[in-house]
Amino acid sequence: MINKLIERIQKTGAPIVVGLDPMLSYVPEHVQKAAFEEYGETLRGAAEAIWQFNKEIVDKTYDLIPAVKPQIAMYEQFGVEGLEAYKKTVDYCKSKGLVVIGDVKRGDIGSTSAAYAVGHLGKVQVGSRTYSGFDEDFATVNPYLGSDGVKPFIEVCKEEKKGLFILVKTSNPSSGEFQDQLVDGRPLYELVGEKVAEWGEEHCGDSYSYIGAVVGATYPEQGKVLRKVMPKSFILVPGYGAQGGKGKDLVHFFNEDGLGAIVNSSRGIIAAYKQETYAKFGAEHFGEASRAAVEDMIADIRGALEAAL
Amino acid sequence: MINKLIERIQKTGAPIVVGLDPMLSYVPEHVQKAAFEEYGETLRGAAEAIWQFNKEIVDKTYDLIPAVKPQIAMYEQFGVEGLEAYKKTVDYCKSKGLVVIGDVKRGDIGSTSAAYAVGHLGKVQVGSRTYSGFDEDFATVNPYLGSDGVKPFIEVCKEEKKGLFILVKTSNPSSGEFQDQLVDGRPLYELVGEKVAEWGEEHCGDSYSYIGAVVGATYPEQGKVLRKVMPKSFILVPGYGAQGGKGKDLVHFFNEDGLGAIVNSSRGIIAAYKQETYAKFGAEHFGEASRAAVEDMIADIRGALEAAL
Repeated sequence: MINKLIERIQKTGAPIVVGLDPMLSYVPEHVQKAAFEEYGETLRGAAEAIWQFNKEIVDKTYDLIPAVKPQIAMYEQFGVEGLEAYKKTVDYCKSKGLVVIGDVKRGDIGSTSAAYAVGHLGKVQVGSRTYSGFDEDFATVNPYLGSDGVKPFIEVCKEEKKGLFILVKTSNPSSGEFQDQLVDGRPLYELVGEKVAEWGEEHCGDSYSYIGAVVGATYPEQGKVLRKVMPKSFILVPGYGAQGGKGKDLVHFFNEDGLGAIVNSSRGIIAAYKQETYAKFGAEHFGEASRAAVEDMIADIRGALEAAL
Repeated sequence: MINKLIERIQKTGAPIVVGLDPMLSYVPEHVQKAAFEEYGETLRGAAEAIWQFNKEIVDKTYDLIPAVKPQIAMYEQFGVEGLEAYKKTVDYCKSKGLVVIGDVKRGDIGSTSAAYAVGHLGKVQVGSRTYSGFDEDFATVNPYLGSDGVKPFIEVCKEEKKGLFILVKTSNPSSGEFQDQLVDGRPLYELVGEKVAEWGEEHCGDSYSYIGAVVGATYPEQGKVLRKVMPKSFILVPGYGAQGGKGKDLVHFFNEDGLGAIVNSSRGIIAAYKQETYAKFGAEHFGEASRAAVEDMIADIRGALEAAL
């Protein structure tokens, strides 16, 4: 799957991923109204609204981008019905040829991580048959529980040719509270990064490992260091746009081959129609606004990479 | 909810929680068969099997115990259908008067943690109405992202009078890999424990805080230290039984009032009928085997506490 991701990045010339994190407040009035007319103001109605919203954004952007990253929390907040919309979104994006990164940030002790891994990336046995629960291509994983919490995910990835992005240095303001604590003079996130590199070396695609890392766009200096600590790992970089990161801050997340990172934007793309820059499209044409925002993001990052490499 | 938990612990005399973590391999043949006859060897069939299994165990044990802790991964592995069984289990346990600790180990950046908090502990807005997605009483939370990943959960708890157990020192063998790293000469889990104490002090029930911690039974020495670091926090102690912990190892997780900890056993209770000690019940009477295992666990822990306090 890391090979497919790289191939699609090269084909689109876009090392970016669209975060499908639909808050109901991002969904235009007319889409909500249609969903509520069909299902009422219910969890099912909300799920239908976010699914229709996602579908339109995917339809208007899939040819420009290699991958999407649905954030499962935004669906889970609507309970089982929300998770149905998550599954529909994953399936639809795959049918459009997109690589799907399930932003699930799961992680537990061994046997429990194995269940998560099976549910999101693998197949579960039911009697004499097997089924895929959610079936994303990549999943994000929280490393706080250590190797035996991560390895069951790696095992499933090996079998299914899928991949992981492990949280190393997250994009949020207080990520440093624990992640930056110094251990023998070096921040904890570097230790985690070294572990990612170690796990990754044993699990390589053609040029990159399928064990990647999450490092926030909001911490470019740390990204520079971590790029060297994990040379074979793809870095998933959230925090572009709405959280403050810009193309020029991101060049150090990439290797000299122009690869090695994939930058996520969520709100900046999916709620583009609410920004002044794209207001001209109007809520009716929110999909076109998202497409324009994707084009601008690609130009920003490509420009920064061309200037730097 | 922490007051209700304490009240139920005192009423039952049992500071224990039954982990409803149903692997399909724990579910007796006849329960699986009945479910598969109705729904086929499908995800729905598997979900029905684990739901019927849970129901029987709850029916046979609910009068002895204060709380249950369903591990969501075991349901999530069966996709949306599995999560329906999770929701049914949560609702059923609550209808039996049990406190439900959702072992979800979620945690993300601020707005995303808020969505998880709403989905598991709070209410989500849909148009002019509000709904509860999963509606557990407590949730477990991963602290790797720091304060702004935890605070949205605390906010919802404050509103809804619910609670959290934050991962401090987990029960698995490699938990030390990051959690034990020394920061200024002290292990990281102590720093996390201090944060839990700090968050907890501001959010107290009558005698204990509703911000608790997870500390594995497999690390009794660390439990002793953490007990003092977080005097007002309840400690959820996994790792009893199948993972190796015993009653006498656990007394230091409790305060002198005999409260402050709640010990979880999952496999040791729900798959008791598979153990030699309880084999006499047979797979047909797996619920009675679980009841006997609960009684033995209560006696073990109560005995150890009486000897120590």
